[in-house]
Amino acid sequence: MYLTWRLNTMTADHLSATFAALADPTRRAILARLASGDASVTELAEPFEMSLPAVSKHLKVLERAGLIARSRDAQWRPCQLEARPLKDAADWIEHYRRFWSESFDRLDQYLEDLKEKESKNERKQRSKK
Amino acid sequence: MYLTWRLNTMTADHLSATFAALADPTRRAILARLASGDASVTELAEPFEMSLPAVSKHLKVLERAGLIARSRDAQWRPCQLEARPLKDAADWIEHYRRFWSESFDRLDQYLEDLKEKESKNERKQRSKK
Repeated sequence: MYLTWRLNTMTADHLSATFAALADPTRRAILARLASGDASVTELAEPFEMSLPAVSKHLKVLERAGLIARSRDAQWRPCQLEARPLKDAADWIEHYRRFWSESFDRLDQYLEDLKEKESKNERKQRSKK
Repeated sequence: MYLTWRLNTMTADHLSATFAALADPTRRAILARLASGDASVTELAEPFEMSLPAVSKHLKVLERAGLIARSRDAQWRPCQLEARPLKDAADWIEHYRRFWSESFDRLDQYLEDLKEKESKNERKQRSKK
């Protein structure tokens, strides 16, 4: 019982860390860059016109969330994308898919109804002429 | 050009607001509760052993991110789940699916190799006996 609670809490904290790490456009851009291959901190800093310490701060948040890993290679220390936590985030959001699908279905229905109404009106006006 | 940039920035901010709102276990639990039906603030506060102001604060974050809507019914003002922003979050994460699938494929391969090695060792030991 306690273990289940602990595990749930740990997973919850893990999810919170993942979502918090993703809640920043620069950090999402860094992940997008790493999706095309490993990169050093200097390479990652380039497109952002940011100081190295500022980028390092973002990298630390991503590293704590387990979204990137840094190689032990002292010379270069490239960063690597670790997508595993994104799976848990995707799984969590997935539970809500039916809600956004439903609202799109309602929108589709509304647009269909609107189209039908318009064509009825057109037919009416044509028959009046 | 400017419009594209503005739209990108707006979408980016929107995504950040969504992820930031999801980065809290209580807010995720509130969304889970609302997935089973609309609820008043008092009803939402109950399972969390939280003060109404504390819950209201969480609701404001969710409302700003567009994840919940509150009815104008002055008597009851129930909260409703609005799943639309979750779709954008899911779409963003979806781009990384191949990375976590790949790492699971690698893990599968590793376990397969391990099993094969073990059964080879067993056969060797049996033939020695």
